[in-house]
Amino acid sequence: MIKVGIIGATGYAGAELVRLLKQHPEAEIVWYGSRSYVDERYSKVFGNMFKIVDEKCLDDHMTELSKEADVIFTATPQGFLASAISEEILQNAKIIDLSADFRIKDVSVYEKWYGIEHKAPQYIDEAVYGLCEINRKDIAGARLIANPGCYTTCSILTAYPLVKEGVIDPDTLIIDAKSGTSGAGRGAKTANLYCEVNESIKAYGVASHRHTPEIEEQLGYAAGRPLVLSFTPHLVPMHRGILVTEYASLKKDISYEEMKKIYEKYYGSEKFIRLLDEGSCPETRWVKGSNYVDINFKIDTRTNRVIMMGAIDNLVKGAAGQAVQNMNILFGLEECTGLDLVPMFP
Amino acid sequence: MIKVGIIGATGYAGAELVRLLKQHPEAEIVWYGSRSYVDERYSKVFGNMFKIVDEKCLDDHMTELSKEADVIFTATPQGFLASAISEEILQNAKIIDLSADFRIKDVSVYEKWYGIEHKAPQYIDEAVYGLCEINRKDIAGARLIANPGCYTTCSILTAYPLVKEGVIDPDTLIIDAKSGTSGAGRGAKTANLYCEVNESIKAYGVASHRHTPEIEEQLGYAAGRPLVLSFTPHLVPMHRGILVTEYASLKKDISYEEMKKIYEKYYGSEKFIRLLDEGSCPETRWVKGSNYVDINFKIDTRTNRVIMMGAIDNLVKGAAGQAVQNMNILFGLEECTGLDLVPMFP
Amino acid sequence: MIKVGIIGATGYAGAELVRLLKQHPEAEIVWYGSRSYVDERYSKVFGNMFKIVDEKCLDDHMTELSKEADVIFTATPQGFLASAISEEILQNAKIIDLSADFRIKDVSVYEKWYGIEHKAPQYIDEAVYGLCEINRKDIAGARLIANPGCYTTCSILTAYPLVKEGVIDPDTLIIDAKSGTSGAGRGAKTANLYCEVNESIKAYGVASHRHTPEIEEQLGYAAGRPLVLSFTPHLVPMHRGILVTEYASLKKDISYEEMKKIYEKYYGSEKFIRLLDEGSCPETRWVKGSNYVDINFKIDTRTNRVIMMGAIDNLVKGAAGQAVQNMNILFGLEECTGLDLVPMFP
Amino acid sequence: MIKVGIIGATGYAGAELVRLLKQHPEAEIVWYGSRSYVDERYSKVFGNMFKIVDEKCLDDHMTELSKEADVIFTATPQGFLASAISEEILQNAKIIDLSADFRIKDVSVYEKWYGIEHKAPQYIDEAVYGLCEINRKDIAGARLIANPGCYTTCSILTAYPLVKEGVIDPDTLIIDAKSGTSGAGRGAKTANLYCEVNESIKAYGVASHRHTPEIEEQLGYAAGRPLVLSFTPHLVPMHRGILVTEYASLKKDISYEEMKKIYEKYYGSEKFIRLLDEGSCPETRWVKGSNYVDINFKIDTRTNRVIMMGAIDNLVKGAAGQAVQNMNILFGLEECTGLDLVPMFP
Repeated sequence: MIKVGIIGATGYAGAELVRLLKQHPEAEIVWYGSRSYVDERYSKVFGNMFKIVDEKCLDDHMTELSKEADVIFTATPQGFLASAISEEILQNAKIIDLSADFRIKDVSVYEKWYGIEHKAPQYIDEAVYGLCEINRKDIAGARLIANPGCYTTCSILTAYPLVKEGVIDPDTLIIDAKSGTSGAGRGAKTANLYCEVNESIKAYGVASHRHTPEIEEQLGYAAGRPLVLSFTPHLVPMHRGILVTEYASLKKDISYEEMKKIYEKYYGSEKFIRLLDEGSCPETRWVKGSNYVDINFKIDTRTNRVIMMGAIDNLVKGAAGQAVQNMNILFGLEECTGLDLVPMFP
Repeated sequence: MIKVGIIGATGYAGAELVRLLKQHPEAEIVWYGSRSYVDERYSKVFGNMFKIVDEKCLDDHMTELSKEADVIFTATPQGFLASAISEEILQNAKIIDLSADFRIKDVSVYEKWYGIEHKAPQYIDEAVYGLCEINRKDIAGARLIANPGCYTTCSILTAYPLVKEGVIDPDTLIIDAKSGTSGAGRGAKTANLYCEVNESIKAYGVASHRHTPEIEEQLGYAAGRPLVLSFTPHLVPMHRGILVTEYASLKKDISYEEMKKIYEKYYGSEKFIRLLDEGSCPETRWVKGSNYVDINFKIDTRTNRVIMMGAIDNLVKGAAGQAVQNMNILFGLEECTGLDLVPMFP
Repeated sequence: MIKVGIIGATGYAGAELVRLLKQHPEAEIVWYGSRSYVDERYSKVFGNMFKIVDEKCLDDHMTELSKEADVIFTATPQGFLASAISEEILQNAKIIDLSADFRIKDVSVYEKWYGIEHKAPQYIDEAVYGLCEINRKDIAGARLIANPGCYTTCSILTAYPLVKEGVIDPDTLIIDAKSGTSGAGRGAKTANLYCEVNESIKAYGVASHRHTPEIEEQLGYAAGRPLVLSFTPHLVPMHRGILVTEYASLKKDISYEEMKKIYEKYYGSEKFIRLLDEGSCPETRWVKGSNYVDINFKIDTRTNRVIMMGAIDNLVKGAAGQAVQNMNILFGLEECTGLDLVPMFP
Repeated sequence: MIKVGIIGATGYAGAELVRLLKQHPEAEIVWYGSRSYVDERYSKVFGNMFKIVDEKCLDDHMTELSKEADVIFTATPQGFLASAISEEILQNAKIIDLSADFRIKDVSVYEKWYGIEHKAPQYIDEAVYGLCEINRKDIAGARLIANPGCYTTCSILTAYPLVKEGVIDPDTLIIDAKSGTSGAGRGAKTANLYCEVNESIKAYGVASHRHTPEIEEQLGYAAGRPLVLSFTPHLVPMHRGILVTEYASLKKDISYEEMKKIYEKYYGSEKFIRLLDEGSCPETRWVKGSNYVDINFKIDTRTNRVIMMGAIDNLVKGAAGQAVQNMNILFGLEECTGLDLVPMFP
């Protein structure tokens, strides 16, 4: 059994980690870290865990935890892990970080978009970007995994094959993303109240959202050169789910079949990526509760563009599910262990 | 492996059966029956099953199915099974019926409340009412299980110990029930459109809902005499979940601790019934996706009443989950096999 | 033009007052009081008011405000008005209080249920309970109106005629109430976040909710003697609306027509009370945005009970609309001035 | 008083016409046309109209209606009006058509995108496209108004000034639109059930939605030449509201202030268009129930693009409200008569 510690266990991503790990045959949670609820029963915070989790919440003492755990998941605010990380911790336990601290290789880009100083830049190089379908080889041997953001996972995977194969002009790439409200976190803010979010939709962080440079960096690797793109997130009145609608100009004439083949080349044998049938549009309801990414595309000859679409559950493939997938790779398990989750509908 | 056939696989209860059985280690679905979608790929109807279920939908030919299956789940409209059942079918396969056809022992009561003639009254006596926590002994040896209704399961289990022990006056019992919209089915009716259901609540079937006599019959067995009660269902703008709030006058002075002990006597070792801590009210979000029943009560000395509360997921414990629980009992498996479902939140 | 000041203008009830008063032909808002947003533009807080309200928020200085306004609405937390009220203020301006400070005549009952000391008990006697359909004569001459609570308005009006006429046994009265989430206020609490409220229903304040004694007092006047009753509020995932389902035993045989006549005797000429056709159940969607109360009932001869149902928009008839209705009475306007609001659906 | 007839009064757009016209001081509805509900009381279909509308539904006999009405609103399926229109009707009454029959000047474009033959092409030239803020002069003298589509209204108005002034390259224009579910109509379709729509988002009609050529035609007039663009609609789990997020490349360097001035040039004195403050993003909740269009933009120097955003209530400015605005212009009333609707929040 892999001994698992979670820091930030009472946020939505942390709670999803608990849900997944309680159903994982090879993992055991030994530490429910939550600074806000120290000494409270975990199931008092999340009533779904009543009679399932009996433990109380602990603090966020990483070094101590690293002695008890084989792997630590940090589902924490930006800057926490960079402040807490140390060589000692890394020698004790693997770290899978669900925050952005080690996702971006250029520290100045990180500091500009996040507006905070990076306290541990010396570990940035070592960190592996945990987008499993792309980087699984590097993940296997890592000590520190930077688990990708929710918007990022969906945005990158949806466009990756076409960028990589040079089918689209990456300078024309526009990503219009829509997210459920769990992505906004569990903080007690007026803006996230039921009556403020329900029955409305809005864009936010226009031309300035922090996931932008992360997407640009990773798709830049695929393109073989740096790129900039437009990324606009929207808040949707639903719990879970991210849908991305991506637009790009085609660099050459290409048929539906040819484009489908490119997607199949990259994802045809991927367990968690479902390439939909022609004409089907991804819908977030079909992936809810699961680790799937549903992807499809439509070529528009009128405008010489392709419209790519992708859907994930932001808490699973966009956070906790991918983190567990990374854990499975790190510990040599089958990648889908504990992740055979049938999407729940309705 | 238990070979399972489903008739009515494209309704919400049928779809939930598929979700649960695909995660069940001892069951295999051999027949996806759906009159409306014969020859269509099942995953075309429910996109969540893409790459999980490859089969096409079949018709509802029960006799043929009974030769291929060990057990048949009928998630069908009232009257279907009574019309289709036969001795041959029952000799070939067990039947777990999610409709009301065999729930009520008095055929005249059935015919009055449902407004249809019962086509196979000869099997009513044999049928076992599949409320597992109460009737598991009888269930084990049955050929035909009448799986309880969703409102019924929650209403009965919440009040059962207090009725059985004579703590409350059953003639004062009032059940105010609230259900998510999946309980209304997947039929294309204007009344169930998003814009008609969302942002509203209403009572319906006041003093006339068909689950009333089923609740009365079962609680009558507990009381040791016939009883009538008030049952009012309400439609709530949410997918899943039933909450019941039940009111009854106390027949004698009783403390919180004494009442708690009564509940523990009946449910203390039940895997799927969670007796909440004092002061906690059941909430449907905490049972979503799981087979749990969350129950609690509050004694009101001002009015000499007890207010009992219970919450279930109507599609799981209120339909498919309980049906699988019945299957587990029928086939000698551990009762919770395939039902270790951690509730999904949010 | 009536000069109106609002204290607590940035809560949901306060915002609804603004919406209604901006459409009122005889009223003009001169003071947008909001301690939390002093000096901020009101339309920065509520974007719907952009280009409609240009004013900035002011503090809650009641004495100063009373010199500028003809009437003051206090949509404030419990205890505020009792601390702030004075003879000088009451001589300057009428007060319509949307809090509970002056609703309950017995100060010890108030202090027990609300858990705070009443700072101005000397004004309790003078205050008139502003349930317009029942008390409009007393309202007309008052200086201080205690605007009824949202649950209370709906609960009382639904049962009032049958209690008053002695048709039901008031000791058997059980009120099961369901409220939209705007009733929980605009405070930044985790419990009111979108992801906590949506897709769930729960009871709360069981046998202890503060609106209970208010309902008991008013229905006690109707019954001609004190009474206790069961009142259980529930939180429903929707913005607006209260639905009450009320149960009581009949004291005598009574036909549908006779009972209907009783309701018509009290409400037949009431503009804002709609007695629905036989068989129709009130639904909150049909009153959304309006000052209507929709009422109906069903006699259940099996149990010798009547089930009464009522629906209102909690922010209109349950708060701001009734407050404006009280203002109209106070200032001798037609009672429905500015309240001819057609319910908005969907 | 203007005598108004409505054909299609029991769809959502028709119902919204009724809501607006019942509050309009100069209009009186004389005909509630609804083929599906002939002879039923209108308030039986829409309970919000109980005690407000007493009339029964009538059929869709246009010629007869034209003798009784000054203006006819047709909120009908595609092709209805083209089949029913005649010179006699047009001489009797003005027509404001909420369907697409007369919106597109090139009949072959209409027939290609809508897949039906146009039965009255002789009236296409005469019809005036009723986008009030752009075409009010032509509207004033028309007999036949083609009321714009909901997506179209929002899409065009948001981009119009920048296209007209040549600030953006129209060939790069991409419109990502999100709509509430009332836009899908009131037909009893499985796809529009609560449990199918709620908690999900999807794109549909990708590169093929029928509003595309309408947007292209109108923005083509602004650009002074034909253009093609990408338009992707999405279905959002909410009742009302359309949000568009539009992307285009800038043709020249331009500052925020300069771009703001352009918007003000076109919309600065428009009653129903609100240009938001810098940094505010339109949200559909702020326009709900009103005729407002909220617009803003963000210049992204990194990508040399502008992101334009617009929000409307699809049933008001996107359908019934704009239709009433057209009626006001046609009959020489102040344009905002009966449309001074304060948005309802929450």
